[in-house]
Amino acid sequence: MTEVTATVDGPVLRLVDAYWRAANYLSVGQIYLLDNPLLREPLGVEHVKPRLLGHWGTTPGLNFVYAHLNRVIRERDLNVLYVTGPGHGGPGLLANTWLEGSYSRAYPEVSRDEEGMRELFRQFSFPGGVPSHVAPEVPGSIHEGGELGYSLAHAYGAAFDNPDLVVACVVGDGEAETGPLATSWHANKFLDPVHDGAVLPILHLNGYKIANPTVLARIPHEELDALLRGFGYAPRYVSGADPERMHRDMASALDGVLDEIAEIQRVARSGGIGARPRWPMIVLRSPKGWTGPSEVDGVPVADTWRSHQVPLSAVRENAEHLAALEAWLRSYRPEELFDEAGRPVPELVGQAPDGDRRMGANPHANGGVLLKPLRLPDFREFAVDVAQHGASTSEPTRVLGRFLREVVRRNAEERNFRIFGPDETASNRLDAVYDVTAKQWQAEQLPVDEHLARDGRVVEVLSEHLCQGWLEGYLLTGRHGLFSCYEAFIHIVDSMFNQHAKWLKTSKKLPWRRPVASLNYLLTSHVWRQDHNGFSHQDPGFIDHVMNKKAEVIRVYLPADTNTLLSVADHCLRSRDYVNVVVAGKNQTPDWLPMDEAVLHATRGAGIWEWAGSEIGGEQDGQPDVVLACAGDAPTLEVMAATSLLREHLPRLRVRVVNVVDLMRLQPDTEHPHGMTDREFDALFTTDRPVIFAYHGYPWLIHRLTYRRTNHHNIHVRGYKEEGTTTTPFDMLVMNDMDRFQLVIDVLDRVPDLGATTALLRQRMQDLRARHHQWTRTRGEDLPEVRDWTWRF
Amino acid sequence: MTEVTATVDGPVLRLVDAYWRAANYLSVGQIYLLDNPLLREPLGVEHVKPRLLGHWGTTPGLNFVYAHLNRVIRERDLNVLYVTGPGHGGPGLLANTWLEGSYSRAYPEVSRDEEGMRELFRQFSFPGGVPSHVAPEVPGSIHEGGELGYSLAHAYGAAFDNPDLVVACVVGDGEAETGPLATSWHANKFLDPVHDGAVLPILHLNGYKIANPTVLARIPHEELDALLRGFGYAPRYVSGADPERMHRDMASALDGVLDEIAEIQRVARSGGIGARPRWPMIVLRSPKGWTGPSEVDGVPVADTWRSHQVPLSAVRENAEHLAALEAWLRSYRPEELFDEAGRPVPELVGQAPDGDRRMGANPHANGGVLLKPLRLPDFREFAVDVAQHGASTSEPTRVLGRFLREVVRRNAEERNFRIFGPDETASNRLDAVYDVTAKQWQAEQLPVDEHLARDGRVVEVLSEHLCQGWLEGYLLTGRHGLFSCYEAFIHIVDSMFNQHAKWLKTSKKLPWRRPVASLNYLLTSHVWRQDHNGFSHQDPGFIDHVMNKKAEVIRVYLPADTNTLLSVADHCLRSRDYVNVVVAGKNQTPDWLPMDEAVLHATRGAGIWEWAGSEIGGEQDGQPDVVLACAGDAPTLEVMAATSLLREHLPRLRVRVVNVVDLMRLQPDTEHPHGMTDREFDALFTTDRPVIFAYHGYPWLIHRLTYRRTNHHNIHVRGYKEEGTTTTPFDMLVMNDMDRFQLVIDVLDRVPDLGATTALLRQRMQDLRARHHQWTRTRGEDLPEVRDWTWRF
Repeated sequence: MTEVTATVDGPVLRLVDAYWRAANYLSVGQIYLLDNPLLREPLGVEHVKPRLLGHWGTTPGLNFVYAHLNRVIRERDLNVLYVTGPGHGGPGLLANTWLEGSYSRAYPEVSRDEEGMRELFRQFSFPGGVPSHVAPEVPGSIHEGGELGYSLAHAYGAAFDNPDLVVACVVGDGEAETGPLATSWHANKFLDPVHDGAVLPILHLNGYKIANPTVLARIPHEELDALLRGFGYAPRYVSGADPERMHRDMASALDGVLDEIAEIQRVARSGGIGARPRWPMIVLRSPKGWTGPSEVDGVPVADTWRSHQVPLSAVRENAEHLAALEAWLRSYRPEELFDEAGRPVPELVGQAPDGDRRMGANPHANGGVLLKPLRLPDFREFAVDVAQHGASTSEPTRVLGRFLREVVRRNAEERNFRIFGPDETASNRLDAVYDVTAKQWQAEQLPVDEHLARDGRVVEVLSEHLCQGWLEGYLLTGRHGLFSCYEAFIHIVDSMFNQHAKWLKTSKKLPWRRPVASLNYLLTSHVWRQDHNGFSHQDPGFIDHVMNKKAEVIRVYLPADTNTLLSVADHCLRSRDYVNVVVAGKNQTPDWLPMDEAVLHATRGAGIWEWAGSEIGGEQDGQPDVVLACAGDAPTLEVMAATSLLREHLPRLRVRVVNVVDLMRLQPDTEHPHGMTDREFDALFTTDRPVIFAYHGYPWLIHRLTYRRTNHHNIHVRGYKEEGTTTTPFDMLVMNDMDRFQLVIDVLDRVPDLGATTALLRQRMQDLRARHHQWTRTRGEDLPEVRDWTWRF
Repeated sequence: MTEVTATVDGPVLRLVDAYWRAANYLSVGQIYLLDNPLLREPLGVEHVKPRLLGHWGTTPGLNFVYAHLNRVIRERDLNVLYVTGPGHGGPGLLANTWLEGSYSRAYPEVSRDEEGMRELFRQFSFPGGVPSHVAPEVPGSIHEGGELGYSLAHAYGAAFDNPDLVVACVVGDGEAETGPLATSWHANKFLDPVHDGAVLPILHLNGYKIANPTVLARIPHEELDALLRGFGYAPRYVSGADPERMHRDMASALDGVLDEIAEIQRVARSGGIGARPRWPMIVLRSPKGWTGPSEVDGVPVADTWRSHQVPLSAVRENAEHLAALEAWLRSYRPEELFDEAGRPVPELVGQAPDGDRRMGANPHANGGVLLKPLRLPDFREFAVDVAQHGASTSEPTRVLGRFLREVVRRNAEERNFRIFGPDETASNRLDAVYDVTAKQWQAEQLPVDEHLARDGRVVEVLSEHLCQGWLEGYLLTGRHGLFSCYEAFIHIVDSMFNQHAKWLKTSKKLPWRRPVASLNYLLTSHVWRQDHNGFSHQDPGFIDHVMNKKAEVIRVYLPADTNTLLSVADHCLRSRDYVNVVVAGKNQTPDWLPMDEAVLHATRGAGIWEWAGSEIGGEQDGQPDVVLACAGDAPTLEVMAATSLLREHLPRLRVRVVNVVDLMRLQPDTEHPHGMTDREFDALFTTDRPVIFAYHGYPWLIHRLTYRRTNHHNIHVRGYKEEGTTTTPFDMLVMNDMDRFQLVIDVLDRVPDLGATTALLRQRMQDLRARHHQWTRTRGEDLPEVRDWTWRF
């Protein structure tokens, strides 16, 4: 165990202790009190909230860390961001930001005086007030922590490219047992000591989670120490319950780790970087519910799981509880901590850092204030040349990679753009970026390696959780980025996406929070081209998942070709406060649109491809006989092939082709800002003609988006219906009844009065499906007429 | 580093090597060959598959482990289950099961001779053939491993309550970087050496994943060793590339770890259990793509990431590649391994264990054959007494806990039922189970702890991933279980659920796979009662997520009261091959139905609550004026309260109350086996009356389920629309417009010809909403008339 020796004088620590007591007092006050905030009169039932909602157990530890960080920030003029893993300790962070004044800066109505203290207490966990967690409403927070597991990933994301920042990250209340946290320790194999900041993990082992001991609190010290060293850290331990001793040890430990961090950075930045640094960390062992009631109703409470939420739960009904609460509050000696007006006494105020150095005022925690727009090249310069619609092919993500290469290049100096991915950047064909940058990597390198470097704009690790957490931390501190992922496996971060979308929704309503760059997903190697990996890799459901979140933060794009993808990507990189989901293929795809048309089409989000259909020049009423709609690259190809077949076999049939890029366009304008009016929708999809809609994902999503439309009962959707295995790409379409031949049959089934030839055509389509079946099962590849098909114009 | 000394003779290892060569030969054959399986003639282009789909890199390592396990199984008569973390190494497991004969047992058409070998090769990754991964089609597999991360959790789940089983779990190709795997190491703090089996983790460090080195392969040995010891294991290392040396070291290591396992179990089972055992494990460092081409087109391939998939990719186009492939195949000396008929030579056959000891024939890998039905008590005996509909209240999950206590008790001897949960079993009010069992826990215990024991039916850890993985492993090996979880955080395992649902769908089509117990989710502390934790804890979207999977494996239940929950729970515990999602509250809820009615209602899945409505006894045509439908406990309460208000204020209005328990009933019978016919649906929801549907989750799901119904355009759905914070329970309803007052307004808006009184009533409802707003924001609790409301009959 690292020996801790005193580095700080007693008087200084007495002030730290006073600050800690003040924060603890204010935390308990928030959980319990409606009134009488300074206990100027004996505590009465009428001063207590009717519903007691909050989490005490973790809070004194959070306050302890905060108070000690204040000291070192002041003494060393540090730039520190505080990430609260156990974010249910909201009272602690609210207390501290109020004490330091950053809370009143954001919320002047909660002033730093008695009136403000009363409001601070009343509003907590109160209808119309503030949440019980470290939600977006809390200044200084980039991490609500409601769902445990992501604090350390957020911390590392915040530290990337912020060389002067120290991110103090408290991991507690069992969070270390979650999978995402368990792998986040390894982020130190990526953090560059030269160009990135430092992360200081503080593992807060207070023994218990909700109802159980935590695993790491109950393994032998030697095992814990081996584990943390095995993760690559140099831990220091601060353990105990006696405040005086704990203050001394914590101060020494903090000075020690900050010296180590400074030395690591000094050596690395002076060109002396050799081995990967062993970054320091702190293990803080303190009782859960420290300084709270030790026993209630005859059972131990402090230092047990019973402290997790509200230790005294019957204050309004039970006089003993009420008395115990008053004694507990008075144990902090509020009369020494606040003056007559309810303001923190000057010695306390002096404990907090000044201005933006206050952790509640750190601009990195309100990333929008630091955000600079990306320097973007003109995406049109990366266009593939399309002399005729669909005459050539290209690999959309490969071309996108060239655009991204230039994005990386232009913003290299600003260091504010990164690409994250689970080992798939090259597989997803974005490898052009390696012309100008590398994959960041601090672990051992061998001569055989390619594109690995200490410093790089691409960060790859086989953990979608870590990629997502890093990107969130990076964006929320005011930078830009992209997460490229296999479509099926993005579900791994469903729950993280939920929390980020909720964060954005809430942040948008807070005037003091400035807009941040959107979280951009590039989902490729998608369901229709996972024919080689098989069923486990086939899942287009992330789109459905994101649709449940607030329309104001969700955007979904399904560009059907390279030029459209470029236009969409440019748009996404410029946007703010959204989650953009872009689904695009990496395989050779026909270039349907020249760039000027692609820009127009992507901007409109959905439109008729007149050049593809056969309704123009017909003799009748200007309405098509059938609409073939498509969204996504594979469905578009099939619709185009079906259109060709129809043109060949039913030359008089008036077919309209509608392509949808921006899926939100399908919704009513009352539901989503991108939604079409009914009039617009009807103009595309008609009010009474059959619509065959080939869609990238699960078909019912299209119904969900369109069920209010006039023509909804005529919309027939084909999509992925959870059939798949290892097979050929076209067989995937056939298995899910979205192949061109089936689409032609669908048309025959739905357009009335097509005459006698249709029976023959239907038979022919069925024969082709049978022939496909036979062919693939003997030859192992797709029918030549399918494989070699090209659009004829 | 543990020193490895030879324990096994050369001749034995030469046979192991021959077996390994045979498996490698068969693996390469599967990836490449259509014909000429024994290379009786020079390899020609016509013998090679047109599309080369498969993963070579991990395969020789998997084969190496398999061959060595065969030896110790035979020598020690072990019962071993093989879990393939890098499940993309499908060729290896297919090769080994074919060699040992278990493959031909499941698939007689793929016989153990030349013809069968040809088919084994041809079918691999071929349309109409078998997947490239260790999918359900592979005998001996409980783990497809397509999405990396869950192997070790599955392994521990399989080992629970199987004291004679050794689960060998290969973790490789970077899987250790995933969050779920990173925390799965800690499962050794739960495994009971007395009553559970052993897990033998084999960390296969072959250096690379798809395109990068793996983190654990590039940290110093001391750090890796500290990490694994910190996780509580005693690692042995087998490192190198020379087969002879590697065979010797692996044999010694395996003998060593199996001796250690035997000793740990002997001591523990003879009553000598003291400290938590340090279970052994193996770290196998071998080259990626070991024995494959070392260089292709001038760049290194073996021992690099370029071996991950198909090392020689242009065999049909490039004569050098073709020649290299032939040389590679011949390097295994197939002529020594297979006889004239293409059968493995007798020495090889003798290497494999016999009968069920073959890992491809282990019955634990086809759990249905071992499955015994649970001994269930009569759930009716746990009923709450309901003299009159809705006159009393109870806490549904607390009563369920009593039923589960009896389930635990009755199956204690059989040891085939477990409850998994992320630290929330008590919070979810199932704590009655602690009367008869405990939480299993092998780490340190303190006097203050409650309900912790070495052996227990409840397993709690703060990782939804681990809970889900354990339960999957437990079910797939033929046992029963339940996962109780906060509703919002079940999204953490969205992707794991996907994979399990896909596994079930595929398994159901394999006649040799027997049905397993369903995976039962109890989602409680649900969206409407996370008023205390706030927005981050509010998400009812898991239902939407599961709906995307095949109807044949998905069931969703929303019991509105205690007795209905009991009936549903009983049904779920008896079912097979499903995923059952049960959403139920833990708070006091009116007891709407006596048990006999609850059983009938749950069995029907949806029905009219005639006693609640006001359509009977009216004077008109037997049709209601409006249908108030509900699904879920909170919506049901609001609908009942709204019905009361309507009865009071519009006594002549004929209201029908429809309650839905089984959400799948809403779908057409053509879409889901539980679906109603249109006639049934119309009988409940009418063909033309307004329907106000109060639904537990996101409202559009009800539209998705009903859009084809006659009366769909009249269905107006209220539900959670992503509004929430820390507030009161009723305020949550108001924020989302699903409160009783709003439902009354919805009725007024939609039922025509209600006359002049409606303006007054509407105003009254709006006043009540305003009064609620004012009241909660000053008093901090719900309106007394809402809080104290009870159903009047």
